[in-house]
Amino acid sequence: MERITSVNNPKIKAYTSLVSSAKNRRDSGLFVLEGLRLCSDVLRSGRTVKEVYFTSEIYESNKAEIDEIVSVSEQCFEISDNVAEKMSDTKTAQGIFAVVASENKGCDIDPSGKYVLLENIQDPANLGAISRTAEAFGIDGIVVSGGCDVCSPKALRASMGALLRIPVIETDNVTKTIESAKNAGMKTYASTPKSDAASLTEVDFGGGVIVVVGNEANGVTAGTMECCEKCITIKMTGRAESLNAAAAASVIMWEMVKPSYERR
Amino acid sequence: MERITSVNNPKIKAYTSLVSSAKNRRDSGLFVLEGLRLCSDVLRSGRTVKEVYFTSEIYESNKAEIDEIVSVSEQCFEISDNVAEKMSDTKTAQGIFAVVASENKGCDIDPSGKYVLLENIQDPANLGAISRTAEAFGIDGIVVSGGCDVCSPKALRASMGALLRIPVIETDNVTKTIESAKNAGMKTYASTPKSDAASLTEVDFGGGVIVVVGNEANGVTAGTMECCEKCITIKMTGRAESLNAAAAASVIMWEMVKPSYERR
Repeated sequence: MERITSVNNPKIKAYTSLVSSAKNRRDSGLFVLEGLRLCSDVLRSGRTVKEVYFTSEIYESNKAEIDEIVSVSEQCFEISDNVAEKMSDTKTAQGIFAVVASENKGCDIDPSGKYVLLENIQDPANLGAISRTAEAFGIDGIVVSGGCDVCSPKALRASMGALLRIPVIETDNVTKTIESAKNAGMKTYASTPKSDAASLTEVDFGGGVIVVVGNEANGVTAGTMECCEKCITIKMTGRAESLNAAAAASVIMWEMVKPSYERR
Repeated sequence: MERITSVNNPKIKAYTSLVSSAKNRRDSGLFVLEGLRLCSDVLRSGRTVKEVYFTSEIYESNKAEIDEIVSVSEQCFEISDNVAEKMSDTKTAQGIFAVVASENKGCDIDPSGKYVLLENIQDPANLGAISRTAEAFGIDGIVVSGGCDVCSPKALRASMGALLRIPVIETDNVTKTIESAKNAGMKTYASTPKSDAASLTEVDFGGGVIVVVGNEANGVTAGTMECCEKCITIKMTGRAESLNAAAAASVIMWEMVKPSYERR
């Protein structure tokens, strides 16, 4: 295995450019992972691991896990501590990094499943938090249209790796996705803060459902709202306008998956 | 009004030490606010504004709001752009800053109200997000014991100012707070991921209630759990252990305040 000790090594420069630039990630079709937990999660994500980098120190204390990552990675490199520090996007580098192909191997929407569709969510912390809650609640997957980069280091970290473990379907045509879902017999709802929409607690979430959660500032687009079967809202007595997208999505997903015997 | 143009002015040095150090905030009994929204919110928080600093540029475009802040502040200073930049904790300084007394003027728990008690919440982003959702849902207040600094710039920013607008009760003795609440006839519940606890959806949230939400890593302490009337949990089918404190608190608060006609 090649050992890299210079921060000027072209491989390391290519890696750090993927950390810092969404454009480089898009153009290359690659993204990066840092830390043992994320590098292990990617094994179950169905994505191709192109390169793995690790220090001898982290290898010594995590042989079994790292051997498993090494066994599926196309290339492997041992790195020195100064290189690990250069590659790291956090204050304390764990010493393990991976480069992964972002291509999503054709994950489909299951017409009997429960999904949230995130339309133009801008903040990677929100995308991450929503994915994490989706996994916790057993939501069948998230559909992402526009907004922040699903493979950004921030989104992945905020999701605690959930973005690698749950099905993520990317679409560049929301109305087409909603129309196909309707044709497949799914219920399609757009969430809105407007109080004249149907109350979340009175909506039927049985069978296959997609709920659209919109952009932090502008909500669900008019076109998407029109295309959905119904608009739904979280009725509340406080200052509704200040509910954050991740908090709203948590409550919506909770109502979607609450065991049906607990609903009226 | 005094005009400050040097970043070495002792007032400015004192201000930046409050931004960077929780210890300095505790020792001085002061905290800082940045931005017009937060500086306006503090007027309704019942706290004493000690100093306000602003550039002529922001004053020109927001005279009415800034005059209102100036009218209650003990001292006011005009600052130059370089000073504003030095004081700012964000990338783009708006140009208005305040120093506020952290003393909480004896806000009490209303025995007929609904509260969440946050025990040792470490992450200011979680504290902020929970406060914001509490405000949106019309929760009567939050009770804070230990954990991160309620007046830290990060928590205030994450709360979008909600920490200044909703009642915040600080306690250094959770069991005593819970015992008094019980004596006042309130229901007291501790939240836990353990699946043998009562389901959130089957718990009675009528009348005065306090729900304890615990530390991100360790949950509610054993002593507090014992002291509460009941343990409650969010029953779910997914990977429960991965639910974040802010997401859990959102769902709990939602069930607490959902109009009672919507509950079974």
